[in-house]
Amino acid sequence: MTRTPVWRAIATTLTDEIAAGHYRPGDKLPTEAELSARFGVNRHTVRRALAELSDQGLTHARRGAGVFVMAEPTDYRIGKRVRFHQNLTEAGRMPAKRILAIQTRPCDTDEAEALTLPPGALVHVYEGLSLSDGTPVALFRSIFPAERFADLPEQLETYQSVTRALTAAGITDYTRASTRLTAKVATATQALHLGISEGAPILRTVAINVDPDGHPVEYGHTWFVGDRITLVLGD
Amino acid sequence: MTRTPVWRAIATTLTDEIAAGHYRPGDKLPTEAELSARFGVNRHTVRRALAELSDQGLTHARRGAGVFVMAEPTDYRIGKRVRFHQNLTEAGRMPAKRILAIQTRPCDTDEAEALTLPPGALVHVYEGLSLSDGTPVALFRSIFPAERFADLPEQLETYQSVTRALTAAGITDYTRASTRLTAKVATATQALHLGISEGAPILRTVAINVDPDGHPVEYGHTWFVGDRITLVLGD
Repeated sequence: MTRTPVWRAIATTLTDEIAAGHYRPGDKLPTEAELSARFGVNRHTVRRALAELSDQGLTHARRGAGVFVMAEPTDYRIGKRVRFHQNLTEAGRMPAKRILAIQTRPCDTDEAEALTLPPGALVHVYEGLSLSDGTPVALFRSIFPAERFADLPEQLETYQSVTRALTAAGITDYTRASTRLTAKVATATQALHLGISEGAPILRTVAINVDPDGHPVEYGHTWFVGDRITLVLGD
Repeated sequence: MTRTPVWRAIATTLTDEIAAGHYRPGDKLPTEAELSARFGVNRHTVRRALAELSDQGLTHARRGAGVFVMAEPTDYRIGKRVRFHQNLTEAGRMPAKRILAIQTRPCDTDEAEALTLPPGALVHVYEGLSLSDGTPVALFRSIFPAERFADLPEQLETYQSVTRALTAAGITDYTRASTRLTAKVATATQALHLGISEGAPILRTVAINVDPDGHPVEYGHTWFVGDRITLVLGD
């Protein structure tokens, strides 16, 4: 006789199967219905087992898509010129962006200071999700001076890349002038976008990019999923 | 008539007094007994109000010492040569270290790789707390090759500074060769040491320092309290 609860036995079985490579990083686990049938238990028990895997950081749920085996965190280099697309490609991942919102509005005091703009000047706000192999790894919000880059919203829509949009706007080079990092925990909204739990660890970077003359062209916040990204310093 | 609970009214009063500068960053709030007397309520109500301030990130409790107004996060520069002591002094804070443990033991595979040591070679393990103005801001664990630095444990005890201990061991210069960063949440043990809540955000850095010939001299993990430290990139 054993005192091990059924849900824990199921969690152990799945953990062992993940460890043995039966399910590999990025793989989708069977659905709750399939796992219920396989183990001969109700969905409540399956959910408890899946919650255990998730608590251990072995899996993550993507809303509407299912439960996936956690990939190893992607290395993400923070350098003077390294960009998202290049970073993920070098790490052997498929990069993608999903636009959440592009709008133009007056800047707040923080944005005015970062971009050396007069109070109330218009800025473009570009918000979106960065994905690695289809999994969200970061939320970002980039602020651009609207007067200097009048057509940027269309260019961002077209290219879904800040580098290419800025190139189209005549900025052929720009570099990271300052970066500040801290740790946060995910808010409910961030958790929903990133497919993580509220309270999960988030690495937040705040960066200012400047053109070759030293003028700020982008003021960006990025919220990286702690379990999915490791930042690596250096160029 | 108002429907505001008493605890909330007290929290609002204290919040206003903090905002007005009556209590300033780093200040100790009155004790529960003093607040009970001042507001004419029981300690349970005071505790509820203080929990609200803490949840808002306005205060933090230090075990046995009381409740303190949260200081602004300290800027902490990550550069090739910037050290803890210099960093905090530049930020106008008083730096201090508290040694938790110094021991010598065989390295694990991760440590062997980082320090380019043969499997099972002896290493010194230096664990402690970094404090800023008396508040813990980070936990650290540094690993050193024991054969090369036989007397380091005594030097660390004496100087409570890695830089000075390494200088005494003949290393007059060393630089940060690699740094990896991610976000975590505090474990129960970390929370206890750092005086924060379990699950609070932690910024973890993993760094290798090398001597002028490129040989690794230190393999260090640091767990910074997210609410108390902002890392700033650059030399």
